[in-house]
Amino acid sequence: MKIGVLGTGMVGQTIGAKLIALGHEVKLGSRTPSNEKARAWADELGARASHGTFAECAAFGELLFNCTTGEASLEVLAAAGDANLADKVLIDVSNPLDFSKGRPPTLFVCNDDSLAERIQRAHPRLKVVKTLNTVNCEVMVDPARVAGGDHTMFLCGNDQSAKASVRELLTDSFGWRDVIDLGDISNARATEALLPIWVRLWSVLKTGDFNVKVAR
Amino acid sequence: MKIGVLGTGMVGQTIGAKLIALGHEVKLGSRTPSNEKARAWADELGARASHGTFAECAAFGELLFNCTTGEASLEVLAAAGDANLADKVLIDVSNPLDFSKGRPPTLFVCNDDSLAERIQRAHPRLKVVKTLNTVNCEVMVDPARVAGGDHTMFLCGNDQSAKASVRELLTDSFGWRDVIDLGDISNARATEALLPIWVRLWSVLKTGDFNVKVAR
Repeated sequence: MKIGVLGTGMVGQTIGAKLIALGHEVKLGSRTPSNEKARAWADELGARASHGTFAECAAFGELLFNCTTGEASLEVLAAAGDANLADKVLIDVSNPLDFSKGRPPTLFVCNDDSLAERIQRAHPRLKVVKTLNTVNCEVMVDPARVAGGDHTMFLCGNDQSAKASVRELLTDSFGWRDVIDLGDISNARATEALLPIWVRLWSVLKTGDFNVKVAR
Repeated sequence: MKIGVLGTGMVGQTIGAKLIALGHEVKLGSRTPSNEKARAWADELGARASHGTFAECAAFGELLFNCTTGEASLEVLAAAGDANLADKVLIDVSNPLDFSKGRPPTLFVCNDDSLAERIQRAHPRLKVVKTLNTVNCEVMVDPARVAGGDHTMFLCGNDQSAKASVRELLTDSFGWRDVIDLGDISNARATEALLPIWVRLWSVLKTGDFNVKVAR
């Protein structure tokens, strides 16, 4: 499958590398066509790895990942262009973290709105599925590295078939065993609101190798 | 020990009954001295159970629980009176839920402040420890009813010895096995922010018998 990964940071590179290892073709998208990080990533990972602008990345992908920082996400998707986004599934792993007032960060949107909803409203034909934003990127693509994989991933979105295909990617390709569908995209308010506890647990536990399990 | 439980709803009654069963003396506090629910609760539970006004309840308790609704908490503690609260430990299990815009509820304080911090600021000599607010009241006092007790409780507060005594109550009396101290009271921003996911999981799972475990 051809997959576009928007964002060249650690999250985008880690998810992109996992998708390459799974046999997919991946284009990493960045602001400029000559992004050095993206070039180095593509050079290292071989023929199925490529890079380009956000628009080229979105045009390339049959499936898209938003791995940009929350503050940049809306601008990046605008740059990607509605013609390249329409009717595609976007897996949104971003978080609305605001570090401008120091650490731990606050959220720049929360409570009665969410970043995922803002993205969905800005691009009505895009099928936004919010997931994976509640763990660090190593855990996203390798849940077994924490407690043998015995923990929970949430997803939400407005399109049922989009959620079904994302769930399959999470379970069959990434190895998630417990995936809870919370409902429509407004439920991203709840999963983005898990970041305040995540950043504090990261401080207490001194590692990003953790996640919540919904015990029931 | 003499314990004052502010609030006569299901949370206050359940915690109060558990404390009575553990051998403590408990006074349930309400707005008026003639609260029928509080009277019925005390009549049922025998000689160690009593009820009274918020001020009488706070004066009685060597340890206090805030089991009022979030919207009422500051008013209730003002009614309890600073002279009755000073230098005591208050276990704050309340949540800033706002149902005025429908369900699921939003939070009336969040992100860069919390209800626990508002309580602490209003009563500087009170030793506020935030805990138990992330599960329903049956699970608060009987964690083993979910997954054999293999899940996590958070606590935070500014006073180390207060937190140590609350931790001991949680583990030795209530049966919690995994209690994570997040730090000072500002960390209540993170645990109160768990309510949005809690209310959605309650809808999906059709039961309040669940909790998060921090897998690591």
